[in-house]
Amino acid sequence: MVLLKDVSTKSPKEFDKEQAKEETGKIKKKLDDLQNLLFAEGRHAVLVVIQGMDGSGKDGAIKNVFGGLNPQGIQVKSFKAPTTEELNHDFLWRIHQHAPAKGMIQVFNRSHYEDVLVTRVHGWCDDETAQKRFKAINHFEKLLQEHNQTTLLKFYLHVSPEEQQERLKERTENPEKMWKYNAKDFDEAKLWDKYMQMYEDVFAHCNDPEWTIVPADQNWYKEYLIAKTLLTALEELKMSYPLLRKE
Amino acid sequence: MVLLKDVSTKSPKEFDKEQAKEETGKIKKKLDDLQNLLFAEGRHAVLVVIQGMDGSGKDGAIKNVFGGLNPQGIQVKSFKAPTTEELNHDFLWRIHQHAPAKGMIQVFNRSHYEDVLVTRVHGWCDDETAQKRFKAINHFEKLLQEHNQTTLLKFYLHVSPEEQQERLKERTENPEKMWKYNAKDFDEAKLWDKYMQMYEDVFAHCNDPEWTIVPADQNWYKEYLIAKTLLTALEELKMSYPLLRKE
Repeated sequence: MVLLKDVSTKSPKEFDKEQAKEETGKIKKKLDDLQNLLFAEGRHAVLVVIQGMDGSGKDGAIKNVFGGLNPQGIQVKSFKAPTTEELNHDFLWRIHQHAPAKGMIQVFNRSHYEDVLVTRVHGWCDDETAQKRFKAINHFEKLLQEHNQTTLLKFYLHVSPEEQQERLKERTENPEKMWKYNAKDFDEAKLWDKYMQMYEDVFAHCNDPEWTIVPADQNWYKEYLIAKTLLTALEELKMSYPLLRKE
Repeated sequence: MVLLKDVSTKSPKEFDKEQAKEETGKIKKKLDDLQNLLFAEGRHAVLVVIQGMDGSGKDGAIKNVFGGLNPQGIQVKSFKAPTTEELNHDFLWRIHQHAPAKGMIQVFNRSHYEDVLVTRVHGWCDDETAQKRFKAINHFEKLLQEHNQTTLLKFYLHVSPEEQQERLKERTENPEKMWKYNAKDFDEAKLWDKYMQMYEDVFAHCNDPEWTIVPADQNWYKEYLIAKTLLTALEELKMSYPLLRKE
């Protein structure tokens, strides 16, 4: 059982910022080639789930890790509070619509996991329902993997509460970040321990494939680790360009 | 009335390849900032329609002009032959679903214009229906512009038939491009004059906003001109970061 307070939010000692940034640059070039291959081959789909507290750097990770890729082969979906129409369906209905097609990389900025996170923290979802949702999530994720050749990568961006406070504060001070400010974020931040507990419960029940817990106090390390994990996963697909189809 | 055979498919004389590439690089940095502002401000939408014959470089334009942007703020939709469900609706039904939200850049790789291009060339759409479709397209484009603050940019990638043949041939020879090969493309290419005539008819009837006819035999010039046109359009929006919303 993962206890998040025992997991460092900082990069391991052996990592140097400049070196990591250089390495990330190299990885991104390889990702560019592999994405082209993924699209050309059209046999695999990739789904990247990004979760984390407000201010954990989800938007930045998406911009800086996935920003160099061909936009024709990648889609990003940010899941917000569900609409009335969405609430009139099962909680995976709106998610399923954005599952990646073969050849595509789909990034989820937040995801179906919010239905066992924010909802539990606020008591909108009781423990019994949560247990049922864990099972449904596992079945759903297996469906995507087994029935559409989907590689699923799940990242939890792990910041310290101190770093989070710094970043939320910056949104009240930096004119280019004020648009991100939401007074409610400070209220949510007060529920930190409860959120951690619910994340730990997610890791205990929905861990196939395993979550990557990304130390995220330093953006350069966060970006390096996500890029590296994606690279490894794409390389494992052993893809190749299709031969000429004579028709 | 535009006669496409009188429009050059090559860059104007004063353009130098290296200079254009350098300039495109600079423009892309500015586009990156402006996209961030577009997203942050959330008051305008941008729709980029890209049309052109097979091999005119639509995919490359999307990769190389829009590739550096934040994938969270851009979506690309490639319109293929309509499905049975799509055919059971009006021709703009499937298009409308992909109209950009405020804050977003949406790129159409082919578009509703195929319904007055490939369909007319093959006789699936008669002249009378085409005239009605032109009107419907104009009303639809006005709706997006007037009712959702959408900046609409329409690009026709203009290659010579000789350059097209070269590129289609390359798909049979270059292993990294074979996946793009479709024997039918050579048959379509034989209908060149008819396609040009139908494009000319589009420019005559649906030209508000005006189409940008992009000389596209040289990719570096094509990319420069699209990037530059997009930059000018975004600068004209006079956007600014929103102030802090105290709630």
